[in-house]
Amino acid sequence: MLFAIKNHPEIAEALAADLAEVETCFSAELLSDLACVNDLVRYVERYRGKMLRPTLLLLSAMASRPGQPVRDEHRTLATVVEMVHMATLVHDDILDEAEIRRKGKTVNTLAGNEAAVMLGDYLVSHAYHLCSSLDNQAAARLIAQTTNTVCEGELLQLANRNNWSLDEQTYYQIIGRKTAALVDAACRLGPMMHERDQSDCRSMGGFGYKIGMAFQIIDDVLDLTGDEQVVGKSLGKDLEKGKLTLPLIHRLETAAPADRHRILDLLRTDDTQRTEHVGWLITNTESIDYARRRAENLVAEAHDHLAVLPESPARQTLHGIADAVISRQR
Amino acid sequence: MLFAIKNHPEIAEALAADLAEVETCFSAELLSDLACVNDLVRYVERYRGKMLRPTLLLLSAMASRPGQPVRDEHRTLATVVEMVHMATLVHDDILDEAEIRRKGKTVNTLAGNEAAVMLGDYLVSHAYHLCSSLDNQAAARLIAQTTNTVCEGELLQLANRNNWSLDEQTYYQIIGRKTAALVDAACRLGPMMHERDQSDCRSMGGFGYKIGMAFQIIDDVLDLTGDEQVVGKSLGKDLEKGKLTLPLIHRLETAAPADRHRILDLLRTDDTQRTEHVGWLITNTESIDYARRRAENLVAEAHDHLAVLPESPARQTLHGIADAVISRQR
Repeated sequence: MLFAIKNHPEIAEALAADLAEVETCFSAELLSDLACVNDLVRYVERYRGKMLRPTLLLLSAMASRPGQPVRDEHRTLATVVEMVHMATLVHDDILDEAEIRRKGKTVNTLAGNEAAVMLGDYLVSHAYHLCSSLDNQAAARLIAQTTNTVCEGELLQLANRNNWSLDEQTYYQIIGRKTAALVDAACRLGPMMHERDQSDCRSMGGFGYKIGMAFQIIDDVLDLTGDEQVVGKSLGKDLEKGKLTLPLIHRLETAAPADRHRILDLLRTDDTQRTEHVGWLITNTESIDYARRRAENLVAEAHDHLAVLPESPARQTLHGIADAVISRQR
Repeated sequence: MLFAIKNHPEIAEALAADLAEVETCFSAELLSDLACVNDLVRYVERYRGKMLRPTLLLLSAMASRPGQPVRDEHRTLATVVEMVHMATLVHDDILDEAEIRRKGKTVNTLAGNEAAVMLGDYLVSHAYHLCSSLDNQAAARLIAQTTNTVCEGELLQLANRNNWSLDEQTYYQIIGRKTAALVDAACRLGPMMHERDQSDCRSMGGFGYKIGMAFQIIDDVLDLTGDEQVVGKSLGKDLEKGKLTLPLIHRLETAAPADRHRILDLLRTDDTQRTEHVGWLITNTESIDYARRRAENLVAEAHDHLAVLPESPARQTLHGIADAVISRQR
């Protein structure tokens, strides 16, 4: 991601300044008079990673009115989307029983599931609290609609746990809601807070939605084939938690009956090596290529959505980030 | 509670009509295009119990402008506070590993902790979503501030788990934030949406805060001395989860050294009968009377806060509910 931004020093500089303000706003909003709360919040500060969503929101703002300064509303909402994202990570790690996140221990591992449930609630509550400080109901409503959708995605995923005949369409439903919806909102809020007309906001939302989908597909590929040291979080979790993802859905759909049964038998066992065996059955198969190709097609479509924006370094940077989503190894 | 309302048929009738609208709004807001989501939501519909918070919000509205109709904003916000309350119940039951709630199985027992985490998130997200449909940032901000505080209360309680030397002041800090804050907000929103001046809103908030405190103290007394069949939820959970509550805090502070050590030894054991033994050590002690007396004093102070309201049947009903908080057996 960073690579894409470094190509445009002037953008990188402006963005760094805005993201620094986002970090300050993030910490200020979460500060409590209770030491025990601040101690817990410190855990998630470590989660702070790519800052992809605030970056996309700020770049969408720059790109939708080149030359015009990014507004305070943009920085506030960039903080809001990051806070919502952090909350979903904290609750996700409980659902996944994940132990490593961004190369550090997860909150549920460090402080227990109960603290993780409440910390996630604390984060999302402050996200809405920060949102309510803006005098903009449209933004608040979009954020709340988005979190509604994210929860639906998580619940749909849970309902399909251990469903080894999950089809591709339902898989897209899941990742569209749980991941792409928030990226969609981030990219939409940039032009929205610059009073760009609705169709431009929709188009930028479409850009975000498609790179969000591609991002999740690559995430799922990395969960099967990635190196934990490089990716920096627990891998193989999807299979462990009965989550079927695109490469395996494709493998099962296209495999010869014998292989199909072999894989299904393997999936149905509680063998601790299951993930390793399946990962090994799938690496270097055309199913991995298929998933990567789907991600590439989504990114190609995403590029087209940027046509509504005037040519600018910020827009170039958005193109670069879209490409980085599929080339990333982590 | 209901008893207090039945004394005023005209209020009971108006309230029943408003609460019916709240129920409709509640279900409409939570309706999803995903069957798996609607199935889960059906679980919490069963949680719907006293509707204390929406009732207090609506009565505060009626009492702050007698004769004037309750506004749509009031009914919407009554739905919001109930939805927030439901979300806290769902996440609370995960923290407490509770199996029974309102005489039915809890979501975590029925659908697992993961589904309960996400369902709670879904409820709170929709609460803010509903809130953002109002063109009133002050209300949205109050709701978000309140949920911030509720989470802090839960986190403070978690931080003091198994702290057998918890003092009375910290106990009040915990219940003030986790329980009283939302009742405070409910009672404040009535006059607030009727444009009563700030000091009146504060005073009504104070009424809510104090009956909220009293309500939680009685809840904690019932957890030690109540009958599960009557109360309709898992009891003895506080001790099981290492929560020290007012009666026991007082007992430990006032007990003779020998008794004190006997109780502490009992608390520190993992004996499954622990709760029973302690409950039995505390029933009919002056520590139960002390806790009930504290609740009575809080309710007495609450009554005074209603002085800002004109005399009316709605105000009388609020007085009646305040008294019912301490007389309740469930």
